[in-house]
Amino acid sequence: MSEYLSVDASGRASSSDVHTLSAQPTPSSKSTLQQQREAALRKPQYLKREPLVFFIMRLNLKAVLLLLTVAVMVITLGIYMRCAAFSFSPDFVRQLSRRQAFETLSSSAAGQDLASTPLQDIECAINQEYSIHCKRDENANEVYVPFSFLRQYFDVSGAVTTGGSSNDAAKFNWMHSNAKVNLPKGKYDPRGVFMYFENYNVEVRDRVKCISAAEGVPVSTQWEKHGYFYPTQIAQFALAHYSKNLTEQTPRIHILEDADGNQMDWNTPKTSNMTRIWHHKFNTSIVQFETTIGYESAISIQLNQTQDLVLSVDLLLVTNSSSLMVTVLNRDTKHSYNLHYLAAELLLSVQESNIYYGLGAGSLNKWRHITRDLHIDLQKGIVMGDKRSPLKVRRSDLEVLSIAFLGIGFYDNITLSTSDHLAHFYDAAEWFVHNQDIKTGGWTNPVRRSLNGFAELRPGWISAMGQGHAISVLARAYWHSGGDTRYLKAASLGLQPYRIYSRDGGVLAQFMDKYYWYEEYPTTPASYVLNGFIYSLLGLYDLNSTAPGKIAREAGKLFAQGMHSLKKMLLLYDTGSGTSYDLRHLSLGVAPNLARWDYHATHVNQLLLLATIDSDPLIAQTAERWKGYMFGKRAKHN
Amino acid sequence: MSEYLSVDASGRASSSDVHTLSAQPTPSSKSTLQQQREAALRKPQYLKREPLVFFIMRLNLKAVLLLLTVAVMVITLGIYMRCAAFSFSPDFVRQLSRRQAFETLSSSAAGQDLASTPLQDIECAINQEYSIHCKRDENANEVYVPFSFLRQYFDVSGAVTTGGSSNDAAKFNWMHSNAKVNLPKGKYDPRGVFMYFENYNVEVRDRVKCISAAEGVPVSTQWEKHGYFYPTQIAQFALAHYSKNLTEQTPRIHILEDADGNQMDWNTPKTSNMTRIWHHKFNTSIVQFETTIGYESAISIQLNQTQDLVLSVDLLLVTNSSSLMVTVLNRDTKHSYNLHYLAAELLLSVQESNIYYGLGAGSLNKWRHITRDLHIDLQKGIVMGDKRSPLKVRRSDLEVLSIAFLGIGFYDNITLSTSDHLAHFYDAAEWFVHNQDIKTGGWTNPVRRSLNGFAELRPGWISAMGQGHAISVLARAYWHSGGDTRYLKAASLGLQPYRIYSRDGGVLAQFMDKYYWYEEYPTTPASYVLNGFIYSLLGLYDLNSTAPGKIAREAGKLFAQGMHSLKKMLLLYDTGSGTSYDLRHLSLGVAPNLARWDYHATHVNQLLLLATIDSDPLIAQTAERWKGYMFGKRAKHN
Repeated sequence: MSEYLSVDASGRASSSDVHTLSAQPTPSSKSTLQQQREAALRKPQYLKREPLVFFIMRLNLKAVLLLLTVAVMVITLGIYMRCAAFSFSPDFVRQLSRRQAFETLSSSAAGQDLASTPLQDIECAINQEYSIHCKRDENANEVYVPFSFLRQYFDVSGAVTTGGSSNDAAKFNWMHSNAKVNLPKGKYDPRGVFMYFENYNVEVRDRVKCISAAEGVPVSTQWEKHGYFYPTQIAQFALAHYSKNLTEQTPRIHILEDADGNQMDWNTPKTSNMTRIWHHKFNTSIVQFETTIGYESAISIQLNQTQDLVLSVDLLLVTNSSSLMVTVLNRDTKHSYNLHYLAAELLLSVQESNIYYGLGAGSLNKWRHITRDLHIDLQKGIVMGDKRSPLKVRRSDLEVLSIAFLGIGFYDNITLSTSDHLAHFYDAAEWFVHNQDIKTGGWTNPVRRSLNGFAELRPGWISAMGQGHAISVLARAYWHSGGDTRYLKAASLGLQPYRIYSRDGGVLAQFMDKYYWYEEYPTTPASYVLNGFIYSLLGLYDLNSTAPGKIAREAGKLFAQGMHSLKKMLLLYDTGSGTSYDLRHLSLGVAPNLARWDYHATHVNQLLLLATIDSDPLIAQTAERWKGYMFGKRAKHN
Repeated sequence: MSEYLSVDASGRASSSDVHTLSAQPTPSSKSTLQQQREAALRKPQYLKREPLVFFIMRLNLKAVLLLLTVAVMVITLGIYMRCAAFSFSPDFVRQLSRRQAFETLSSSAAGQDLASTPLQDIECAINQEYSIHCKRDENANEVYVPFSFLRQYFDVSGAVTTGGSSNDAAKFNWMHSNAKVNLPKGKYDPRGVFMYFENYNVEVRDRVKCISAAEGVPVSTQWEKHGYFYPTQIAQFALAHYSKNLTEQTPRIHILEDADGNQMDWNTPKTSNMTRIWHHKFNTSIVQFETTIGYESAISIQLNQTQDLVLSVDLLLVTNSSSLMVTVLNRDTKHSYNLHYLAAELLLSVQESNIYYGLGAGSLNKWRHITRDLHIDLQKGIVMGDKRSPLKVRRSDLEVLSIAFLGIGFYDNITLSTSDHLAHFYDAAEWFVHNQDIKTGGWTNPVRRSLNGFAELRPGWISAMGQGHAISVLARAYWHSGGDTRYLKAASLGLQPYRIYSRDGGVLAQFMDKYYWYEEYPTTPASYVLNGFIYSLLGLYDLNSTAPGKIAREAGKLFAQGMHSLKKMLLLYDTGSGTSYDLRHLSLGVAPNLARWDYHATHVNQLLLLATIDSDPLIAQTAERWKGYMFGKRAKHN
């Protein structure tokens, strides 16, 4: 702080050329009038000693009368001048204000609220266009500008905060940006955490409608409100869970029923039946159940599980009307909900307290291992049921009351865990294996996408970011699974769009006919979105690092080509005080599309990560400079 | 103003989420304590009617005593609370401050200085890096930030101004930039004013050492303190005078002596001689003079000329020791100076009050028409004599006292004028004719030039800006002279460096192997300075518009090529809140070299001019957006 204060002081010193200077008398040069007035403003000393009335009674009445008259006049004059003309006593006021400023900043003692400085109102004419109300401290040659104006004019943020205790002074926190930089913990490892995605929580995002029970992956509503599978989002879901699996504590797993060592006492109504039978093929016991229609016939177990909210189960449903039902209580509202998992072609449906997830029409008579975060399933159902003002449910408020089965089917290995990240990860990896366009190698986006100024992308477009993210998922799945070649094949095929120009259905663009670029949005003309490009490079790096031979070389070649472009083009995004999100200004001849601070932070985070695998000082230096922009630093002007 | 104030209001309304809100009682909910205190603070009404002492004498003394005692107590309490605890009466204070703010803004009545608002001190933590002192109005949920901080943090400027009369309220003028936009008056005409150069005054610049008497053009000290001929500056000198000639009033010309119709009574000492003789070749009379050495032998005329300070004369000096001497008085300091013009190889030399300009060693026995701005010659001499704190001489203070000749020679047509812009223009045009490198077509810069991060340019480098400016001068000289082909030839030859790459001694660069660029500084790698490039284009446009046939076509081809590049590359300079001066960030991988506001304004002015000759909306739209940046507007972020 002392360092800044010296800057402040010099700033004021140099401000003499722009402010109208008023002579500032030194303390010793106080005028007689000022001294008199200060004396008048002092609290009479005798008030401390004895009550005024008794003191008066002992004196000659006329003398007292004269004294009091003079006192009234002096004090009245003092008040009049104090109220109306602080500018008559600059010295006194300045000293007072400085002392109070010092007290405010140098101690956290109570009484800070009492500190007040009289300032004058002054009109501030902004660029000769409009006026705002400012304050002026004429003696300190300072003008004060309201933050409500600055916030809007400069797009900065700030808030008054108070410490925990009432003794803590209020403080105004000026934040040039609200975004956060994530410093890499070491060299980037394609087998490890993906960037800082352990902090991501894809499923809680508003634009995630729910986690499909048929696929175990999120359904997006970002560009199409009915919901669709968005490869980029699915990959982020996978990478977040893969990363969390590496950074979080080992989950607590509670095996409820495996028909072998762990058995529960199932409540079986008269018309229903449940049997533990030996499965020859699986070489393990499983549970067979059969009930009539109606909840009252369900076989069930009662629970009071409060923290382990991730349910997994192996399940085979034989008929359409069969289902798994989990009853969950919100202990805060005392309201309970039934989560139904049905063998139906249904994403999510809600009827009062009943929330239905479909396992897909094709799920009948097939064993499925499903993993459900009951908190997410419940929350998404509540949002679906009341879109306007959905109740926000706290995870810690939930209690699993019962698990039940209806209809005809088999189950095994019912568990409740604190988490099951790898199950989610592999659900997503499987999705990428099964949802790739075999001809193009692309994971297509089934929605229109309109970027301002560009021709609309029609459903079926491919994103280099989605491809790269998917490859990052598949490369990890290939490695983590110990070499499941289905993942490798899908990843390898996913390289194909990197080589095809956007106009031909791929994601490739070329800047100034020179540098190859992988497009997050394969627009015409090219848009050159920076963060999506770098994510596409990370996918290539991941595959290059984990795949064998030829596939690694192919990925490596595309990566090197992209890194070359990145180094040549990176500074195109540098505005000297932030970054631009893309290069549409060059493609369309319009204003630059500046990156908001969280995208700017993403740029910084990406460069910091790249700097751990590429020693070119351009990367690290640019990352540092861009980080500085988040704290108000700017490139120099000439 | 009203438009903004509504924005301000909404800004405050929305600020409730970042400020700690305190309950704000409405005026009607004033506490009894507050009402009492307000009453106590009112000035007693009876004071207005009659002297207090007489009033008291007519009342019962004890009653008066009681009254006064109560008054003292109430007022003392009032002062105590007012001094120590403004926060106890937020309502009263707020109302007071609002009313005063209104008065300040809505009227220019006296008493504005009396307005004061008590604010609290609050610490502002800037980006969690350092702290400054701010003010807080807790009731209005507003924090005030000192401008001394903002000026430095955001590089804005501002100053308190007061109107002419003492009744005018002080006002704070917030200026996002101090630079000025020059709106074109119509379609750019290559035969007319060059941009807005009628406002330029090249010779008064500090970095102009003087106007060479040998050449009649400025000598620069910008990159070499001994002084050198800088083609770009010489061209700006020419273009400024050409433009002033078109925009200023016709000068007043005072012919002192032409040996024919205008003759003066010359003071001729005994040892000297002056004769008017007939010059057969010129077919006019001239003056012949011959004096001994020493000022006292000079032939001279006494004058008291105060406004016409541009001297022109036709002069032929026969011997080294011959000279023209002009004596000028500074009427402010009563000090007089002798300006000597000698037939010597000397730029500028000063000995006390004698200021010497050399006409060049080659000037002996040749007729020279010289045109001198005596004010400039005197001022530059004073600077030369006292570099540390040179006296600044006002033009209006000068008086020409005498003109004298010494040695042996001839003269004719002595005039004093208010200005002689065309003479200066043609002096410069001649310089370009005589100082061109015939082999390369370049006007070389005889100094080193070091641009941070680039290899140093060695003496002899050529600038596309200098070439373009020179061609703009020569094209005008060709047209204005009615077709003097010497000017046309030089201009045509000046196109040559536009076709030669910088590495080969020209000024041509190519961006991304694609777009051709004419370099103000032919650096390796290329620097792509924007304003110099556009000036180089204007030269091409000027020649294309004025030259005949083939030369016009050649210039037109280079112009079209450059405009194509400009349109493709213009947005590379757009930072969303300003412009970059060059593209060194792309060439060197460093921070952008942001254009300071006056260069940014030059960019805007240049685009506005180009928009009058090129209808591509990109030019006009970009100019408008860039103009907005000067008023704090920014491109949107996503």
